[in-house]
Amino acid sequence: MANLQMSPREEMVARFLDAAARGDVAKLSAMISQSSSLVDESGQNGWTALMLGARNGHFEVVNTLLSKGCDKSLVNKSGQTAYDIAKFWGHKHIASLLANSRDGNSHWLLPSSGLAGHENYFSREFLNRMSEKRSDSVWLEAKQSSPDTVYILFFNLNPLVTSGPDETSESKPDIKLCRLSHGCIKELLANPGTTLVFLGVEKTVKSTPSPPKDEDGLTAWFALNTDDNPIEHLKLPNPNSFFLKPPMPGLLKLSADEAGVVAQARAILAWHNRYSFCPTCGSRTKVDEGGHKRTCLKEDCRSLQGIHNTCYPRVDPVVIMLVIHPDGNQCLLGRKKTFPAGMFSCLAGFIEPGEVIEDAVRREVEEESGVKVGPVQYVSSQPWPMPSSLMIGCLAVAVSTDIKVDENEIEEAHWFTRQQVIDVLMKSGQPAFSMPPRQAIAHQLIKHWVGMSPNL
Amino acid sequence: MANLQMSPREEMVARFLDAAARGDVAKLSAMISQSSSLVDESGQNGWTALMLGARNGHFEVVNTLLSKGCDKSLVNKSGQTAYDIAKFWGHKHIASLLANSRDGNSHWLLPSSGLAGHENYFSREFLNRMSEKRSDSVWLEAKQSSPDTVYILFFNLNPLVTSGPDETSESKPDIKLCRLSHGCIKELLANPGTTLVFLGVEKTVKSTPSPPKDEDGLTAWFALNTDDNPIEHLKLPNPNSFFLKPPMPGLLKLSADEAGVVAQARAILAWHNRYSFCPTCGSRTKVDEGGHKRTCLKEDCRSLQGIHNTCYPRVDPVVIMLVIHPDGNQCLLGRKKTFPAGMFSCLAGFIEPGEVIEDAVRREVEEESGVKVGPVQYVSSQPWPMPSSLMIGCLAVAVSTDIKVDENEIEEAHWFTRQQVIDVLMKSGQPAFSMPPRQAIAHQLIKHWVGMSPNL
Ligand SMILES: [Zn+2]
Ligand SMILES: [Zn+2]
Repeated sequence: MANLQMSPREEMVARFLDAAARGDVAKLSAMISQSSSLVDESGQNGWTALMLGARNGHFEVVNTLLSKGCDKSLVNKSGQTAYDIAKFWGHKHIASLLANSRDGNSHWLLPSSGLAGHENYFSREFLNRMSEKRSDSVWLEAKQSSPDTVYILFFNLNPLVTSGPDETSESKPDIKLCRLSHGCIKELLANPGTTLVFLGVEKTVKSTPSPPKDEDGLTAWFALNTDDNPIEHLKLPNPNSFFLKPPMPGLLKLSADEAGVVAQARAILAWHNRYSFCPTCGSRTKVDEGGHKRTCLKEDCRSLQGIHNTCYPRVDPVVIMLVIHPDGNQCLLGRKKTFPAGMFSCLAGFIEPGEVIEDAVRREVEEESGVKVGPVQYVSSQPWPMPSSLMIGCLAVAVSTDIKVDENEIEEAHWFTRQQVIDVLMKSGQPAFSMPPRQAIAHQLIKHWVGMSPNL
Repeated sequence: MANLQMSPREEMVARFLDAAARGDVAKLSAMISQSSSLVDESGQNGWTALMLGARNGHFEVVNTLLSKGCDKSLVNKSGQTAYDIAKFWGHKHIASLLANSRDGNSHWLLPSSGLAGHENYFSREFLNRMSEKRSDSVWLEAKQSSPDTVYILFFNLNPLVTSGPDETSESKPDIKLCRLSHGCIKELLANPGTTLVFLGVEKTVKSTPSPPKDEDGLTAWFALNTDDNPIEHLKLPNPNSFFLKPPMPGLLKLSADEAGVVAQARAILAWHNRYSFCPTCGSRTKVDEGGHKRTCLKEDCRSLQGIHNTCYPRVDPVVIMLVIHPDGNQCLLGRKKTFPAGMFSCLAGFIEPGEVIEDAVRREVEEESGVKVGPVQYVSSQPWPMPSSLMIGCLAVAVSTDIKVDENEIEEAHWFTRQQVIDVLMKSGQPAFSMPPRQAIAHQLIKHWVGMSPNL
């Protein structure tokens, strides 16, 4: 029932805003055709329909309102635009839509890029890293014992999870991280074999009616790893929890938010796991800056003079590329011996010192397949925490077509037609091969290429 | 004088090919208007005018011939197309033109990217890395003592060079690497404190009339580094040679070919210099694979089971971005305290574990300047051997404009108008600031942005 104190117009606005918040595009459109001025109306705290759609991740709501000429520069009482809200809540495709829409100033500043608005798995930034807090030991210590703080735990780099679908989650992941409190892991934290890393704070400040327990209202996340079975030191809230292994394909079953957190946590923990000693002098090191630095304990070590990468985690850049045949209708896919039977994927390899992205693509393709590559185009990137790669995804156009595989690298490579690829993607016809799952950037590159065809 | 045995047509073809080889576009065009069939004529060894233009780096010759409808798919007697030749001789802008020209099949496969055909400093691939030879110790040893082999020497990571302009070089570098023979460095090579790295072989097989001294005709390059003054162990061919330091801005005075070699060599040598000990167990390591791997000497070290990045050189990906104001006519530049007075540049920072390129851009810009960024577009990349960064250059569109600098990172940041930037680039008017030299990707990003304006 509508509030009796509302005017008919107020009631209409309330229903309009409610439709936006729920994602009811049909109702929204119908109401706009009755009264176009509704698009810029606001309700509580200055929230417009656009903001509510952006808040709740309703892409079509935002798209519809923009197409009806709403003002995307309006701000709510917290001074946030719809873009700020979409960004804040991790709806990147909506943020991108808002940033690029015709109404704004920025749409003409950059040519549209390949996978704009697309988000790869392991890429979501659910946390704000707040790197400035890494050296604030007082703040970090307070957060460590805060009841709001979330701990995620790894044993030999495998995360503690629970299994089973969750009906409240939009993506219904099979596997969820166990979010532990300080009370659960207190004993483990005191153990000298435990590594602790500050991951950041939740971007989404809690909007619950109860005031946050912490002064600043920020929910901090930490990751822990140990190489000794930690079960006896734990007070587990969920008796069905277990350590997820092997990491592949296990880690691909997380929600987008949690996959993003694991990508960051596992890469840093794996670095601690392999880089306990100073590579410059061989001495032991200590952990600094909330787990983001290791400092040599030998007083006169060269690594202590100036800034050196020996003290910081590694990120290993890798090129991964879909090579397109000069005829434009075939692509080059290869398989490693270790792949499941029938699976083919994009070629890939580590970027070498002194090499640019485009030349790494050309070198790797020629080394692995004998095919020469001309133009190269960057498409998108993806963290791959095995242990700490940054996959840089590209399209590349071949200028030769004869294949000669390097058998140390790959077992087979072939040109596949666009139709063969479509059959595999659509699971139609007689698929000639299988491809990596949607969580892999290789899958997304292939899909992107197929999508370039006017036939699909 | 024309050869008396030539027919008039043969003589005309010879003059035509000679014009192409010399870069005489006027003559070439005039001759084509007389006889359009000249464009696909070939001379010795099947070389066409297009191939000769590509060989000698004459962009306008290639462009003219393509516009006159020549057949770019023709091959010479070695089976090379003009594209292969341009690529082989390091003329990337010509290779790109050939790969993308209308005549070919590939021009429509990829949208044209920002700096296509542009080559950043430190990026030229003068050598073929031939990574498959790194594990071929017999081949490597033979090459080490070959009289054709080129050694470049570093002392504390500073290269041995000579100074003075060279009139025969197109880019007239101030500084040239000393290319030493095995005889010069033999004694030094036997020294246990010397690090040896195989860099690759010259892409340009010698075309001199004398047969190559080596069986395979490949000229190998190696880099050496030592931390002890090597002068007494050297037989220096040039008494005016010296070790170039400090590396910045010294290394920016090399030719494009030599800068590319130094980018690779210095990054790997710097890794050896700081990573002599196994970071997993603290033991000593030995050098393998022609200087591209270090293996732990402790028999039961975990780093010996499976493949781990502890054994391989680091490449540290960095984002560097020009942030564009939402009005499209200003860009954000900042200065570090360590910059020369008046100099402003793009913002930049290391990519963190678990982070994609675009989010690293957004995080760094907000951390350093307080400005929020929406769309991000990759432009080009550049190795930066200080010690082993990969600079990933992007344009980024701001969605907020208030500046609040992080004083730990930068001293000042401002929006500069397009006209202010043009004045600095053209050294016209009253330049409001100075910017990094053309060898820095920051300079190229700024120029790229200005070039997007129809006003220039
Ligand atoms: Zn040390
Ligand atoms: Zn070891």
